Amino acid sequence: MQQERFEKQKAFILEADKEKNILRQTHLSGHGRRENDAEHAWHMAMMVYLLKEYSNESIDLARTMMMCLIHDIVEIDAGDTYAYDEEGKKTQRQREEAAADRIFGLLPKDQRDELRGIFEEFEAAETGEAKFARAMDNLQPLLLNDSNGGEDWRSHEVTYDQVRGRQDTTQRGSKELYEVTREILDRNLEKGNLIPRYNWKA
Amino acid sequence: MQQERFEKQKAFILEADKEKNILRQTHLSGHGRRENDAEHAWHMAMMVYLLKEYSNESIDLARTMMMCLIHDIVEIDAGDTYAYDEEGKKTQRQREEAAADRIFGLLPKDQRDELRGIFEEFEAAETGEAKFARAMDNLQPLLLNDSNGGEDWRSHEVTYDQVRGRQDTTQRGSKELYEVTREILDRNLEKGNLIPRYNWKA
Repeated sequence: MQQERFEKQKAFILEADKEKNILRQTHLSGHGRRENDAEHAWHMAMMVYLLKEYSNESIDLARTMMMCLIHDIVEIDAGDTYAYDEEGKKTQRQREEAAADRIFGLLPKDQRDELRGIFEEFEAAETGEAKFARAMDNLQPLLLNDSNGGEDWRSHEVTYDQVRGRQDTTQRGSKELYEVTREILDRNLEKGNLIPRYNWKA
Repeated sequence: MQQERFEKQKAFILEADKEKNILRQTHLSGHGRRENDAEHAWHMAMMVYLLKEYSNESIDLARTMMMCLIHDIVEIDAGDTYAYDEEGKKTQRQREEAAADRIFGLLPKDQRDELRGIFEEFEAAETGEAKFARAMDNLQPLLLNDSNGGEDWRSHEVTYDQVRGRQDTTQRGSKELYEVTREILDRNLEKGNLIPRYNWKA
């Protein structure tokens, strides 16, 4: 073992630990506290393995799981940008690129390039792996939120169109899980958990 | 898609969510709060991918990562048994088997058998995949605890022999990471963070 190489890997592992302190807007099932990035990523990676039969394309499982595990790591520096925060999204890309440079830069060069590649692949959402990982990124909070009677949508006054628009990436990863998603959204619209079209209070 | 099949998979995914509320004895880096099972599993699975070059045997990455992601799921019913709690360990196996029956039983039959198999494989620690996953299960809290100046060991008055004994499974998964472990333990012994042999206060 090269000691210097392991020290760099260890630095990355300890840096990643900070994701456990980055809170998302989603709440845990059972009307729990807010979820953090590490928990969200753990759940997504497990779902990749469990729901792989629904992927539109044949995928490399380990790569897709790792993609899920690290897809939010840049938020250690850049913070979480809520899916429906249009102001925050304007500067998101720039903030996240600087973060990716610093955080993946902790690794040995070969792994820096490999993991940065996996991260950028997720962002681009063009490969089968990335499209399925993005489907998990959408479906995981949807399942939690639905289990809590849609309270995250209600508290943020999210509209049906906003959520529905975001689900196009799910369809590109999994036509079957998109059908599940539609059923969940339609049911929550009917129950008044999602605002029909416009957010009248905005 | 068979609706009944997906409903079972969804039930498992939502049940697993409860792992985010099961606290371990390890504290997050930066002298943070206690870690939960989902966070620990996320960190382990990422480490499998990142440290695979140190595995004694060639391993199936996706299987090893999934093993890490679900290895503590029985604690939803059985609770966390601290590695050095000798009383709790006496009933641990029985409690965890009943939990595995119930929790994996939520899944469609083929996946119930597959995931139960992965879980039992981890417990048996005989395959290359299981031995490397066990090495991660040891190394992950060790890195966190070391980064915090060994405070988890100090607060539990853990002895050097107790921790060292547990690391045999690391050696079976990775000789190289066992060397890293020895260095960490020897350094913490020297600093007085680990009690030399006996726990005199016990």
